[in-house]
Amino acid sequence: MRRITEEATVDGRLRVELFSDAVFAVAITLLVLDLPLRGASGSLLGALADHWTAFAAFGISFVLVGCVWVSHYRLFQGVRHIDGRLLFLNLLVLLTIVLVPFGTSTIATFVTRPGAESHVAAALFAAIMLLMGISFTVLYLVITRQKGSTGGSPAVPVSRVARLRPMVGLIVNSVSIGIAFVNPMAVLALTALVAVYYIVDQLAAVAA
Amino acid sequence: MRRITEEATVDGRLRVELFSDAVFAVAITLLVLDLPLRGASGSLLGALADHWTAFAAFGISFVLVGCVWVSHYRLFQGVRHIDGRLLFLNLLVLLTIVLVPFGTSTIATFVTRPGAESHVAAALFAAIMLLMGISFTVLYLVITRQKGSTGGSPAVPVSRVARLRPMVGLIVNSVSIGIAFVNPMAVLALTALVAVYYIVDQLAAVAA
Amino acid sequence: MRRITEEATVDGRLRVELFSDAVFAVAITLLVLDLPLRGASGSLLGALADHWTAFAAFGISFVLVGCVWVSHYRLFQGVRHIDGRLLFLNLLVLLTIVLVPFGTSTIATFVTRPGAESHVAAALFAAIMLLMGISFTVLYLVITRQKGSTGGSPAVPVSRVARLRPMVGLIVNSVSIGIAFVNPMAVLALTALVAVYYIVDQLAAVAA
Amino acid sequence: MRRITEEATVDGRLRVELFSDAVFAVAITLLVLDLPLRGASGSLLGALADHWTAFAAFGISFVLVGCVWVSHYRLFQGVRHIDGRLLFLNLLVLLTIVLVPFGTSTIATFVTRPGAESHVAAALFAAIMLLMGISFTVLYLVITRQKGSTGGSPAVPVSRVARLRPMVGLIVNSVSIGIAFVNPMAVLALTALVAVYYIVDQLAAVAA
Repeated sequence: MRRITEEATVDGRLRVELFSDAVFAVAITLLVLDLPLRGASGSLLGALADHWTAFAAFGISFVLVGCVWVSHYRLFQGVRHIDGRLLFLNLLVLLTIVLVPFGTSTIATFVTRPGAESHVAAALFAAIMLLMGISFTVLYLVITRQKGSTGGSPAVPVSRVARLRPMVGLIVNSVSIGIAFVNPMAVLALTALVAVYYIVDQLAAVAA
Repeated sequence: MRRITEEATVDGRLRVELFSDAVFAVAITLLVLDLPLRGASGSLLGALADHWTAFAAFGISFVLVGCVWVSHYRLFQGVRHIDGRLLFLNLLVLLTIVLVPFGTSTIATFVTRPGAESHVAAALFAAIMLLMGISFTVLYLVITRQKGSTGGSPAVPVSRVARLRPMVGLIVNSVSIGIAFVNPMAVLALTALVAVYYIVDQLAAVAA
Repeated sequence: MRRITEEATVDGRLRVELFSDAVFAVAITLLVLDLPLRGASGSLLGALADHWTAFAAFGISFVLVGCVWVSHYRLFQGVRHIDGRLLFLNLLVLLTIVLVPFGTSTIATFVTRPGAESHVAAALFAAIMLLMGISFTVLYLVITRQKGSTGGSPAVPVSRVARLRPMVGLIVNSVSIGIAFVNPMAVLALTALVAVYYIVDQLAAVAA
Repeated sequence: MRRITEEATVDGRLRVELFSDAVFAVAITLLVLDLPLRGASGSLLGALADHWTAFAAFGISFVLVGCVWVSHYRLFQGVRHIDGRLLFLNLLVLLTIVLVPFGTSTIATFVTRPGAESHVAAALFAAIMLLMGISFTVLYLVITRQKGSTGGSPAVPVSRVARLRPMVGLIVNSVSIGIAFVNPMAVLALTALVAVYYIVDQLAAVAA
């Protein structure tokens, strides 16, 4: 356990963290608006069965945004100073977070339809996930390279391997954009795998 | 009254609390979107009368989520250190909180309809409440078993009885899933009883 | 100006304040969902003209919730200790805040219609405003009567007159429920007057 | 880098900041509700192509609100004391922030339609942006003129030129209201230019 140390008292860091948290929280909760039945007037069982993709996409997106939140939480514990570049990079990450409910809604609605609709929807979903990954990686690199920063892990130096691990998600998301035009449903499966990978990665990072 | 003591200064605890608070707050406020009349164009009195279940479900869900918030508030005052396991367990609790508006909307819309629709809707509502209870109980057990943790009650050791009390809600929610297929309306009544039980339990815990 | 003093360091007060703030913020922002044109496909000028009551109700509700937030902000600066009673009273206040977008939407939609619809809608709006005022007044009385509390104004004792001032709003809201059945539009006007009264009252309280 | 200094410990400043952050976060996230396809049932490619203005308006509004947030973040670091006037001026800024999703939705829906609809929609959008700029400028002037305030830049005195820079946005927004009645699409382009200007201005302010 760490107490509040010098680095935790960076003026203004708390506000950046909590503004980000509010955006994460609203985006993660808006995901539920896409679940079927809210105000639906048709058959409940039919709606539940027909829209299983909405539940799958909801779960996957919730886990992915949750993992980014955990990474963001850890990353900012190592922040040494807040400057304009960091504020705008953080806004860029938040922009991609805000787009997640849009991408999730789109793939949930269109992935089971025949033809071009499902391909475009799956590619859009994968692209938003990729943008989220890229923008977070840039923020990560900027913060961990700050003079004196420890990337939130004071006892553990950030190894080259540790910096490469998030790349796995980026590569899978990139490949998914292409796969979307072959098998849109595979994009959901691949993104679910990335979500599982991130959870395992984060839990392992703690144990280290 | 307790002042900010050593345990209150755990680095990063505040951010976990306030991210959770934001999710609680958005979920609790989204409940209102299910109330009828928003943008309605029909008869107001008819809508109010026909949709009394929406008001009942809104009130019950608000109270239950509010009680979980109060428990979460108290629980985290005893947190000694934040690790990855705790972060993900907390995300699991928040996932169930986010599902509450979905379950509330579903039971409000379908509980008064004849046949299978109402049974499934009531079972879904009870299942979400059960998941919320189970995930919070797991978080509770993990935190109160932390070395040096006091479960937010520094002066009062957590007795075995205290740990059993939340079980009451879990049992009623479990039974409700079965009852849903006999009498869906009874699920609303039972969940209302759980809500009242939690309020009394929480207020008694303070007096102790 | 006051610095962080002993009373400001009450353990857990910050979390109650910020959870409340998140609910206030979501409720105040959801008000905008009731404004016409969002996704509208008809005539823009016609929609703007026909729905002027939506804009009036939006503005009035925003100001009233904003005034309650300012009062809540000041009130909690005087909180000496957080107990279960205070937590649940605060939840009760937040419940009424969450209902405001519902009441605002209802009066905005129905106030210009002939007959019973507009009467019920205006009475509902006035009743929600009354409940908001009553629950806040109870919270206010409980906190200002806490041993050692100063009601957020350390230098100025809370006089009997100061305690009576919020009553003005309660009385107008109560009377409005009756007036709703005579002239629904007058309810909007009276609530606007209460909003103006609260702003003047709050600004005067600062100057004192 | 600045540590928590005396001025950062102003009692109650954190709560004002975080309430504002929550409103910013909800408003910025609600913008996504206006993107097409959410729950759409038509052609996806057609919807994406037809509604490019929705994506443009979303991006422009996100950047502008983000820039106001960055300015708000910096401005409050210089706040010396919180009084009622400041609280209500801040609420006024938040009122305009809450109106942004409404204005964005309106221009996105109507700007491509022929005739009066698009003119009114573009003028409404520009007017909301102008109100946001004016209210923030008033808040800025009140705070930077507080005795002992430094406008968030302790090392750099606020020069007359620095105070004039935000005027550029105000002037462009004012002119845009007129241009809306000539060429509505030009309003989107001009507002995008203001957004770019603010980003460059903010990043330059850091480097200074």
